[in-house]
Amino acid sequence: MAAVDGGEVDHLAGERATAQFDVDAMKVAWAGSRHAVEVNDRMARLVASDPVFRKDTRTMLSRKELFKDTLKKAAHAWKRIVELRLTEEEANLLRLYVDQPGYVDLHWGMFVPAIKGQGTEEQQKKWVPMAYKFQIIGCYAQTELGHGSNVQGLETTATFDPNTDEFVVHSPTLTSSKWWPGGLGKASTHAVVYARLITQGKDYGIHGFIVQLRSLDDHSPLPGITLGDIGGKFGSGAYNSMDNGVLRFDHVRIPRDQMLMRLSQVTREGKYVHSDVPKQLLYGTMVYVRQTIVADASKALSRAVCIAVRYSAIRKQFGSQAGGPETQVLNYKTQQSRLFPLLASAYAYRFVGEWLKWLYTDVMQKLEAKDYSTLPEAHACTAGLKSVTTSATADAIEECRKLCGGHGYLNSSGLPELFAVYVPACTYEGDNVVLLLQVARFLMKTVSQLASGKQPVGTTAYMGNIQYLMQCKSAVNTAGDWLNPAAIKEVFEARALRMAVNCAQNISKAPSQEEGFSELSPDLLESAVAHVQLIIVTKFFEKLQQDIIGHGVKEQLQNLCNIYALFLLHKHLGDFLSTGCITPKQGALANEQLGRLYAQVRPNAVALVDAFDYTDHYLSSVLGRYDGDVYPALYAEAWKDPLNETVIPDGYQEHLRPLLKQQLKFSRL
Amino acid sequence: MAAVDGGEVDHLAGERATAQFDVDAMKVAWAGSRHAVEVNDRMARLVASDPVFRKDTRTMLSRKELFKDTLKKAAHAWKRIVELRLTEEEANLLRLYVDQPGYVDLHWGMFVPAIKGQGTEEQQKKWVPMAYKFQIIGCYAQTELGHGSNVQGLETTATFDPNTDEFVVHSPTLTSSKWWPGGLGKASTHAVVYARLITQGKDYGIHGFIVQLRSLDDHSPLPGITLGDIGGKFGSGAYNSMDNGVLRFDHVRIPRDQMLMRLSQVTREGKYVHSDVPKQLLYGTMVYVRQTIVADASKALSRAVCIAVRYSAIRKQFGSQAGGPETQVLNYKTQQSRLFPLLASAYAYRFVGEWLKWLYTDVMQKLEAKDYSTLPEAHACTAGLKSVTTSATADAIEECRKLCGGHGYLNSSGLPELFAVYVPACTYEGDNVVLLLQVARFLMKTVSQLASGKQPVGTTAYMGNIQYLMQCKSAVNTAGDWLNPAAIKEVFEARALRMAVNCAQNISKAPSQEEGFSELSPDLLESAVAHVQLIIVTKFFEKLQQDIIGHGVKEQLQNLCNIYALFLLHKHLGDFLSTGCITPKQGALANEQLGRLYAQVRPNAVALVDAFDYTDHYLSSVLGRYDGDVYPALYAEAWKDPLNETVIPDGYQEHLRPLLKQQLKFSRL
Repeated sequence: MAAVDGGEVDHLAGERATAQFDVDAMKVAWAGSRHAVEVNDRMARLVASDPVFRKDTRTMLSRKELFKDTLKKAAHAWKRIVELRLTEEEANLLRLYVDQPGYVDLHWGMFVPAIKGQGTEEQQKKWVPMAYKFQIIGCYAQTELGHGSNVQGLETTATFDPNTDEFVVHSPTLTSSKWWPGGLGKASTHAVVYARLITQGKDYGIHGFIVQLRSLDDHSPLPGITLGDIGGKFGSGAYNSMDNGVLRFDHVRIPRDQMLMRLSQVTREGKYVHSDVPKQLLYGTMVYVRQTIVADASKALSRAVCIAVRYSAIRKQFGSQAGGPETQVLNYKTQQSRLFPLLASAYAYRFVGEWLKWLYTDVMQKLEAKDYSTLPEAHACTAGLKSVTTSATADAIEECRKLCGGHGYLNSSGLPELFAVYVPACTYEGDNVVLLLQVARFLMKTVSQLASGKQPVGTTAYMGNIQYLMQCKSAVNTAGDWLNPAAIKEVFEARALRMAVNCAQNISKAPSQEEGFSELSPDLLESAVAHVQLIIVTKFFEKLQQDIIGHGVKEQLQNLCNIYALFLLHKHLGDFLSTGCITPKQGALANEQLGRLYAQVRPNAVALVDAFDYTDHYLSSVLGRYDGDVYPALYAEAWKDPLNETVIPDGYQEHLRPLLKQQLKFSRL
Repeated sequence: MAAVDGGEVDHLAGERATAQFDVDAMKVAWAGSRHAVEVNDRMARLVASDPVFRKDTRTMLSRKELFKDTLKKAAHAWKRIVELRLTEEEANLLRLYVDQPGYVDLHWGMFVPAIKGQGTEEQQKKWVPMAYKFQIIGCYAQTELGHGSNVQGLETTATFDPNTDEFVVHSPTLTSSKWWPGGLGKASTHAVVYARLITQGKDYGIHGFIVQLRSLDDHSPLPGITLGDIGGKFGSGAYNSMDNGVLRFDHVRIPRDQMLMRLSQVTREGKYVHSDVPKQLLYGTMVYVRQTIVADASKALSRAVCIAVRYSAIRKQFGSQAGGPETQVLNYKTQQSRLFPLLASAYAYRFVGEWLKWLYTDVMQKLEAKDYSTLPEAHACTAGLKSVTTSATADAIEECRKLCGGHGYLNSSGLPELFAVYVPACTYEGDNVVLLLQVARFLMKTVSQLASGKQPVGTTAYMGNIQYLMQCKSAVNTAGDWLNPAAIKEVFEARALRMAVNCAQNISKAPSQEEGFSELSPDLLESAVAHVQLIIVTKFFEKLQQDIIGHGVKEQLQNLCNIYALFLLHKHLGDFLSTGCITPKQGALANEQLGRLYAQVRPNAVALVDAFDYTDHYLSSVLGRYDGDVYPALYAEAWKDPLNETVIPDGYQEHLRPLLKQQLKFSRL
């Protein structure tokens, strides 16, 4: 098992013995296949056993030490990838388990895909092999100091000069400084830079350009280019390993053929022309990137949950009878009601992420066939899932930290760094609120088209059932009735549709569509969330209809699915009641059923997080140790702190002794 | 004005010009009095103008540098306090504006009060003057590695030895190591240590003892005492300035008279005897401490809101018409609907905190008069307010960070550190969930006593109105009806009471009271929250009934009060609907009114945060600058990062160059 690192104690053995399912089979269900379990396990162990990849003192490093450590790990990872002739799948997993943000993330995740997606075949042939061999290191320079979500507002210019057949890239204002790109500050030699294309006196809007930033000889910035790191970020360790950068151009010239020309070109004469490649092809990349973000959400959430569940089984507080042992905090209903929905969410996000992977291939096939009909739906769906899963995961990591009590506040718990490194996911690749408004816009459009008889597709197909869903009343009569998937699906569909229809009706009362949309935007956010939660619930149910092998595995997943759905129902009870989807009595029954489900999960909780198959290295948490031997580890970890290098602290002579000796008035500070 | 630091630009002048109220008068309403404004302003400026108290590079310091910086600031603060002969009020404010956790917090906040509260007059006479003069530095050593919330579970022992007239203080297990006490790790010379008192072979439970930890000559730990820091904590800067410590005793002997003997004593012979001082006196301290925590919540929340409001007025995104200027993000309804409730909460917590200050004096007066009748109510009330305000504030700071988009993730925004330094408030001085359960227990008792005709007091007085509140129906008929305080109070009272009664009824169905309480504890938490929110809303309304001077001030506060209440109503709509307090239609009207109130706050938003009167030093945020000159400041701040000391990063030669030059396979890492 990946998680056992040779120790002999197992304080959680008792917990593992109560599991009512086959943990190995659950690992397969979680990872997606026997192969996935195997390769994950192998790569995780490869990283965990290599001293270069140690991260237990990461939060104690200075910014410079941390950055150097990142460079070292990236180079070592590449060395291992080459030496071991790892496949692309293996290499990606190895980087995942190295678990330290760095320039390679952007090189592989943004720079190479941008060239592949937006470059001509010729451009790909020139640049991609160099990138693949790391002869160049690339990043993705889009956002500016004054411009984030609104790409159309970028100020950097690329003006074509027909005299020299070059583009002149320039930062006309302070706010046009490129700001945030990962890998830009110190590591990258090249960037895909987004700038306003200006030719023949006309501004053609934002286009991508390959720009060399640094000398390949000595790494110094090229003339006209100012480069730096944008400074410290949230947390110790965390994203401070990344050189998010600032970049200014002072009339920097690049050859014309470094404009990414797959979709449009500038000719030798300076004429702007469109190619015959459809714009829609770019959507594929967006679906791909968001799919990986949802997968990352389930990974981050499951790590936090794994730590909190294991520690809650170790930690004992209160409940002692006359000096007897105290109660495991995992036995408290308050702990269960906060923690088990997060456990269920981790599984829910895992399966919806798996489905998104399928959606991506489906979208790509349709794009190849020039069928663009389902694109808007796929786009809305991925935008919504990115937003909802990342927001909930960020909150959930912090909730897991609180569920670990005081000790969760220590860096050695791993949770502060996990939170700090995760939260940017709520902002990058589309701010979560902006994305939800895009979903809402699509929902409003879908509702408006229902009247004209246009059949909604994919994840909005349920809206076609409007006659029924607008007036149906839930038939739930007992707590047990809530275990029926159809009962849950019906109320989630009715809630989502009724909220969307309410919004549409209220918008139609406004002086204009745009004004109405703006006024109602807080309600629209809630409507979008309702729709996205329905998608997640539905995909979990669909997963349960697949073949799931292994003793008790399906039963556990059913419990988790029901917890996920009924927890949402309770949390958003106002939605369900105000739209008349359920009665207060039915809401109370759902809550009652939720309590019973928690009781069923309790004996399986530790085994359910074991199924994530995380090594202690990856978890990087003394509270989440596989063997549960928490207290000696906490104690040992403390002494590593630099403050403990000396018994008498640095500063005693200057600042403490004069105070204690009442000499302060005479000392010069 | 405190916040203007001599600059000439004011990018927020336009925002300030639209304010519809007298900002100076609002400062008085916020601070509590003209005097409070003056003294706060004076102390804030004193700190801001002193270079020793700089904190702009705090997040870049190593742990050792940061700790040394804290020692330096503490000594310098004490020097200024003595030199300037500051009053206690002024000294406390000076420490507040120094804004860096350190040993002095525990020395003044816990060590001295513990001796004053639990020491005999003789003990006070001996120890307090030494502490007042800083001849000794003290901390409060209660929690242990294995024991937090449950004080009765502590393992450290203090065994009386009649042969030598001493206590032998000992740590019998690893989990009995004292763990977390602030100031313990490196700074304190003494501690109040909580341990099981054992005499004549009997365990008398937890008592406090004054124990010297370090030599007053050279600061080295005394024999038998192991001391250290427990390691890094959440965030950069933040609480890492504090030496939270670990402490183990190996049969350490202290004189008998260092047991804190106000409530009980051990005689020379080893007999355990109670004094005639009533135990209830200790409650006074608890009310006092929690009152300060609520005050801190409004302070932390208002800082975050101040940053987010100002930056939202500067930041522009989208909405441009053909190249024109983009829209201030503060104009977006989604931004308003997330931010203005937090602005309203800051004011709400400020006023409930002010009331708690009154409650404390009231409790103390009653205790002096040996009237203990209102103690349980006061205890539940302060526990609940501590829990609800700190949880909401922690979430709100993170929400403010997200409302600042990507730049909120930079340390220079001030928000990451504010969050990291604030979140422990959810755990210390009573874990928030444990406290809410105490509130719920009190509510269940109050409900059960209603039948016997016992009149509930103070913040539970409304429960006496049970006949009406169990069956009333809100008369709200238009959105405007929700502006009537009576309409709001009624539904909040009905919601809180009905939830409590529901819980009581469900508990009564369980086999035993305890089992029922445990099973229903998730519902009980919600019931307790409903009760506490009612208190906050009520105290805000009561504030509005006082004389409030200044043009437009009362109107603004009325808007904020209504926003606070209706925001809660919307957020907890499920509570109000499921208990039948309001109809879905009335819920929609409340939401409609909320939107109108946001529009009324919009032109006043910047002035409403100016009224907090925070200096740029205290805010410590480039996004929250008073002058709104954000972008040049962000840009300038970046270059201070240690990574920017060199153009070519440390590590290039070893780890980047070999990669780029394809020499990696031959290099030795």
